[in-house]
Amino acid sequence: MAYINAHYLKLKAGYLFPEIGRRVKVFCAANPQAKVIRMGIGDVTEPLVPAVISAMHKAVDDQARRETFQGYGDEQGYAFLREAVARHDFQARGCDVSPDEVFISDGSKCDTGNILDIFAANNVIAVTDPVYPVYVDTNVMAGHTGPCSEHGEFQGLVYLPSTPENQFAPEPPDRKVDVAYLCSPNNPTGAVQTRTALTKWVDYARANGTILFFDAAYEAYIADQNLPHSIYEIPGARECAIEFRSYSKTAGFTGMRCAYTVVPKTLMGQASDGVRIALHKLWSRRHTTKFNGVSYITQRGAEAIYSDEGRQQVRTVIAQYMDNAKLIRAGLAALDYAVYGGVNAPYVWVKTPGGASSWDFFDRLLKEAHVVVTPGSGFGACGEGYFRVSSFNSRANVEDALQRIKEKIRTA
Amino acid sequence: MAYINAHYLKLKAGYLFPEIGRRVKVFCAANPQAKVIRMGIGDVTEPLVPAVISAMHKAVDDQARRETFQGYGDEQGYAFLREAVARHDFQARGCDVSPDEVFISDGSKCDTGNILDIFAANNVIAVTDPVYPVYVDTNVMAGHTGPCSEHGEFQGLVYLPSTPENQFAPEPPDRKVDVAYLCSPNNPTGAVQTRTALTKWVDYARANGTILFFDAAYEAYIADQNLPHSIYEIPGARECAIEFRSYSKTAGFTGMRCAYTVVPKTLMGQASDGVRIALHKLWSRRHTTKFNGVSYITQRGAEAIYSDEGRQQVRTVIAQYMDNAKLIRAGLAALDYAVYGGVNAPYVWVKTPGGASSWDFFDRLLKEAHVVVTPGSGFGACGEGYFRVSSFNSRANVEDALQRIKEKIRTA
Repeated sequence: MAYINAHYLKLKAGYLFPEIGRRVKVFCAANPQAKVIRMGIGDVTEPLVPAVISAMHKAVDDQARRETFQGYGDEQGYAFLREAVARHDFQARGCDVSPDEVFISDGSKCDTGNILDIFAANNVIAVTDPVYPVYVDTNVMAGHTGPCSEHGEFQGLVYLPSTPENQFAPEPPDRKVDVAYLCSPNNPTGAVQTRTALTKWVDYARANGTILFFDAAYEAYIADQNLPHSIYEIPGARECAIEFRSYSKTAGFTGMRCAYTVVPKTLMGQASDGVRIALHKLWSRRHTTKFNGVSYITQRGAEAIYSDEGRQQVRTVIAQYMDNAKLIRAGLAALDYAVYGGVNAPYVWVKTPGGASSWDFFDRLLKEAHVVVTPGSGFGACGEGYFRVSSFNSRANVEDALQRIKEKIRTA
Repeated sequence: MAYINAHYLKLKAGYLFPEIGRRVKVFCAANPQAKVIRMGIGDVTEPLVPAVISAMHKAVDDQARRETFQGYGDEQGYAFLREAVARHDFQARGCDVSPDEVFISDGSKCDTGNILDIFAANNVIAVTDPVYPVYVDTNVMAGHTGPCSEHGEFQGLVYLPSTPENQFAPEPPDRKVDVAYLCSPNNPTGAVQTRTALTKWVDYARANGTILFFDAAYEAYIADQNLPHSIYEIPGARECAIEFRSYSKTAGFTGMRCAYTVVPKTLMGQASDGVRIALHKLWSRRHTTKFNGVSYITQRGAEAIYSDEGRQQVRTVIAQYMDNAKLIRAGLAALDYAVYGGVNAPYVWVKTPGGASSWDFFDRLLKEAHVVVTPGSGFGACGEGYFRVSSFNSRANVEDALQRIKEKIRTA
């Protein structure tokens, strides 16, 4: 009988969001009259902007005529989109990124998992704690870890605690690691790495031969002009960093599936015999062999985000979500919750009242206020005692949720 | 410095189709006046059918309004599509497949590569030769093989020669293998497995605990009513087979990206300690952790293929391509080429004249007739001395290409 990848058996029961979904479903089945407000999974709620809609209608029409029909595109993405990315997202901010270093994909979740394909199993890997669960689970599935401890830590990973004491932005470890995941603006804490903090990471990486996986899926939510949007704003980053970006939160593309990964041609890894190999070449082979490009219609939609009209429209939607984040911060702070994030990020990270565990408080919020949040412990051991509130919602829902929490949840 | 996955270094220079693209590009740059006809890569040329176009316009409009907007869908696909697949593609043919055994994805190329994630590295793997290169390359990348021999065979894989003597449908090997790839209708040979041949494979698989990876991406091209479209038409297949299907060739979706994989809940693998594990559970974990679903618009387009109107329209396009295949078979046979396939498949598999090597004849066809085909040796050692002609083209191009081959290529 064929052998399975037994590393999967080390994983905990379920990926965080399906487990939330399961509990909400059970609650709704038992309480069909309850109007549940979902502030758990970070899914957008506002429709796509008119510039994107119009570009996609045109693209659908292109697919209806032989003369304009598009079959297989380059797996790496259409030139029109790769060029727009390089110009607007990087060169406009002084970053040296060329179109052929941009790989268009169908999601950052996919990319941050798939990137492990081009690395060996013997690298030492660091993650922050709390952390986006996909970083950890995909390393477990790839056999890069030992079993899970009872605190939810996988043997072999280096966990870097993110706490109020370090502003949820841990410094590089005092030991050498080969790969480190950084997410800024952070999911789940909403913290953003400053230029000084990122420079420390780049200097550390260059001194230790570390590859940084920099996940900037939420960069569009940065309001403070002094904060970096890309790791490539830091000198030397082209020698040590891969950056992940997504249109999911930037432009409401969660249902459309478009993202990209930047792999600079100057980035090297080594074979076990010490021979240096360009990671760009390996990722290109991976991407062209195991992936077949993103829908033409989606890519035309993504291109439209970079038009003057598209940029303006997208900014308006983001401003709406950030107004929600402000409301959430202020509303919960007024009820004496300790709140973090939510200023340059769509997530507000909140301490549970009275030392409640994350899942216990999740269940209380669901049962008593009919509000769904994300339990912090789902993001790692250091997330225990916190919960994440997403600002992706309508203003009315946010106000309603805050009112219910105020009325229904006793925090003392 | 971080260690790379050195198995990538065993791969040959480039994936087949990029190499063809490179040679065509060099030729076109040197001969800008030449009108090149591409019958190499199997990409469709006809526009999407009206039923699909109309469903996608409606889906774009859904994304423009808050009330109908779709964010993240289930990673496994929307229920509307999974149910249509189970009903029309399987239950209608008497196959026992339920919607929750169907995993919607963005391509069979992706699925046939990604499926390896849930298997261990110590399985013995069989492939036919010639073979769709992705099956081999993804095993190499995953470290399931040794190095490549000078004949292009990777150590550790079991190659099953497909030859005129066995009608390009090799029987199960006389040794035990853990995994075997079958593609029917076959890419590249155009051969189709009969019910008798598939029954032998299913019986072999059940006796040996083998998992069959059955790739039916071209099933819509089967004209002969006696040939099976799905492995699940064979009794016992639910205990031994995973099936891959794609809309790429069925409905011209190469630029849209939609496919699916069926993993029956009755299918088991084993951990190294002999414990039996359902593969459905593992694939579900893989799919929900490393993938984020297919574009809503694309899934609505795929759903429309199953409407009465959509089915009729798609059949008409397939008939056009199959008329091309007939022309290609007849045209080349009249010039004394030995031709195979092209009756229940869109590919015609042709012996090179005068014992020429595949790449030599590829270059002659390109330089002398300005026609691009696919060199058979790109599909494996047993493909040497053959070339593949794709019927995905306009009737006019097919006629033009055949005329040029007749006039420009001396076969003696």
